[in-house]
Amino acid sequence: MSSTFQVELKKVVDDSYEIETGFSLEKKLIQDIKNGLVGNINKFAIVTDSIVKDLYAQKIYDLFIEAGYQADLFVFEAGEKSKTRKTKEEVEDAMLEKQYRRDCCIIAVGGGVVSDLAGFVAGTFGRGVPFINYSTTLLSAADASVGGKTAVDTPLATNLIGLFNQPKKVYLDIATWKTLPEKQIASGLAETIKHACLANRDLFDYLDQHMDEIFSNERAACEHIAEENCKVKYQVVMKDERESGLREVLNLGHTVGRAIETVSDYRLLHGEAVSIGLVAEVKLAYKLGYVTKDEVNAVIALLQKAKLPVAIPDYIDRDALVKKLYTDKKVRNGKLRFVIQKGIGDVVEFEDGVFATPIEESVAREIIESI
Amino acid sequence: MSSTFQVELKKVVDDSYEIETGFSLEKKLIQDIKNGLVGNINKFAIVTDSIVKDLYAQKIYDLFIEAGYQADLFVFEAGEKSKTRKTKEEVEDAMLEKQYRRDCCIIAVGGGVVSDLAGFVAGTFGRGVPFINYSTTLLSAADASVGGKTAVDTPLATNLIGLFNQPKKVYLDIATWKTLPEKQIASGLAETIKHACLANRDLFDYLDQHMDEIFSNERAACEHIAEENCKVKYQVVMKDERESGLREVLNLGHTVGRAIETVSDYRLLHGEAVSIGLVAEVKLAYKLGYVTKDEVNAVIALLQKAKLPVAIPDYIDRDALVKKLYTDKKVRNGKLRFVIQKGIGDVVEFEDGVFATPIEESVAREIIESI
Repeated sequence: MSSTFQVELKKVVDDSYEIETGFSLEKKLIQDIKNGLVGNINKFAIVTDSIVKDLYAQKIYDLFIEAGYQADLFVFEAGEKSKTRKTKEEVEDAMLEKQYRRDCCIIAVGGGVVSDLAGFVAGTFGRGVPFINYSTTLLSAADASVGGKTAVDTPLATNLIGLFNQPKKVYLDIATWKTLPEKQIASGLAETIKHACLANRDLFDYLDQHMDEIFSNERAACEHIAEENCKVKYQVVMKDERESGLREVLNLGHTVGRAIETVSDYRLLHGEAVSIGLVAEVKLAYKLGYVTKDEVNAVIALLQKAKLPVAIPDYIDRDALVKKLYTDKKVRNGKLRFVIQKGIGDVVEFEDGVFATPIEESVAREIIESI
Repeated sequence: MSSTFQVELKKVVDDSYEIETGFSLEKKLIQDIKNGLVGNINKFAIVTDSIVKDLYAQKIYDLFIEAGYQADLFVFEAGEKSKTRKTKEEVEDAMLEKQYRRDCCIIAVGGGVVSDLAGFVAGTFGRGVPFINYSTTLLSAADASVGGKTAVDTPLATNLIGLFNQPKKVYLDIATWKTLPEKQIASGLAETIKHACLANRDLFDYLDQHMDEIFSNERAACEHIAEENCKVKYQVVMKDERESGLREVLNLGHTVGRAIETVSDYRLLHGEAVSIGLVAEVKLAYKLGYVTKDEVNAVIALLQKAKLPVAIPDYIDRDALVKKLYTDKKVRNGKLRFVIQKGIGDVVEFEDGVFATPIEESVAREIIESI
């Protein structure tokens, strides 16, 4: 009655890339472009935010122009609130207006918001143009440099509209951290502490012993944590690019954290919200018997040493927070699911390849009301 | 001075899928889902337009509900003007509102606008959920079923924001063509004639001999052209998924066609605009010496037999049209580039793997002013 036709599309894809960590990598970026990092493309859209523009992106733009390339700066208002479909649309329209088409490369200069947004723009501009990530924050070094996750937020959910898009190269410029406000350093440390909690006890101890050096931008300590962050994330991500199972472990602290971030209407920085989320989730692990009371206290103490909040602010509506948990991507069949820390430096594997477990709303509510 | 870290992401990706051509395939779709076409997903977002909803999508929705699945209809206003970021956003928000997350499948029921839009939504919803394409027009059978191209239009360019996203399966339901207005059949035939012109002289002759049967929805003729369309497109696309070289041949008639479509503010259907584009581009080929006067006339005669326009309407501003050509994706370094037909059933390969050639604006203008 009907006929069928098979479309064969099996192929090898190589999205491998390099992460370079160092001090002041602007000239290295230009050198890499000259050496063919993105082939013979000579048109560069530098996407950045209103703060990073003056600090670093303008300088990178100048270097591109000096080197004889076509380049333009596309600047949006700094802050998590800009991570929207509207900002994406504005960047796209500005690029189209300046005659950018498919023969260009996008360079994200900034933190996680810039790389999430610019990476998403790159993934859909002309159905995909190459992009490079020049990271200027500890948070994005910790969070956004490995994994290829790009996204924007919507009124109803954070990070749910986006795609997987691997950069051609990532630069972690540690020299840029010196201009970060202390709150931003702290926010970045939340992701680092998360990585330590879920996979690396040594990193946890290192942070405990070198916190002052990190806050004073001492190179050895900063490079060490930048690299250890990448390694933890890479070990997880390389085994599971599609976030089907193992990769969910990176959600530690984020189930509650992202909900707090949204309900706070972004008065809390991402890392601050994650810090509170880590407290909630280590307490949940304690309730389920996977960590000791001492381990709960050690996690809270390290977060405090990193100048991070460890309690839910009073202005957060607890009911709204519990409701917001249901917008989490791990929700399956209407049930909340959490990653559970096992001691310090490990997580629970519930079944083969299953790292998140269903939790009753009443239990989540009890934890939330306790902090 | 700096340290580097290599992220290895080389893998085998299998995006193969099946195209099924037949009469009334609604029940086959449900059967395939039951047999595991998209694994154990049981939540289906049926995306359709305001016309196709009542004709076919409602029936498919009912079958899903009867079969015990969760399903919802997401309906947008029919027409090319809906293929925007705004409509994408509305569909996303409606899905989020109904608690759709990553554990769902999107089913596009409709023509090219629906599959372009729904495929794009699927590609970025939760960073990618599976989608199925249920095609109800000749145009989408011809154009949208092979290649994985999804996109929306923007004020400054058509089809420039989108991504490559392969469906899990495509259904070409020829029974649905009977409800198409004659203008829509004609519009679909424009893409079919394009395929014939660029790759298949036999198909050109078949169309010449069986045009009446196609317009009266006779099954054998309709199935034949649906399949031949897929074959031409597949032969091109399988060799070049990223549209780097060979795939540009599918742009025959589209360089001028898409510009006319936009400048007409969509008063012309896509296929009608492509028809005029094919006339322009076969005349360009004649000017360059690649087709004979008889071949130009044969192309024009077949388009007329398919009830398609072969002249640029008077209301189109020629200057605006020439300017609009520069938004074409083939533009490189500010130069217009065209695919050139070689006789009937072939195109010119200018260098190894290069199927588009730079054309001076004055030449393009002369052609446009002659039709």
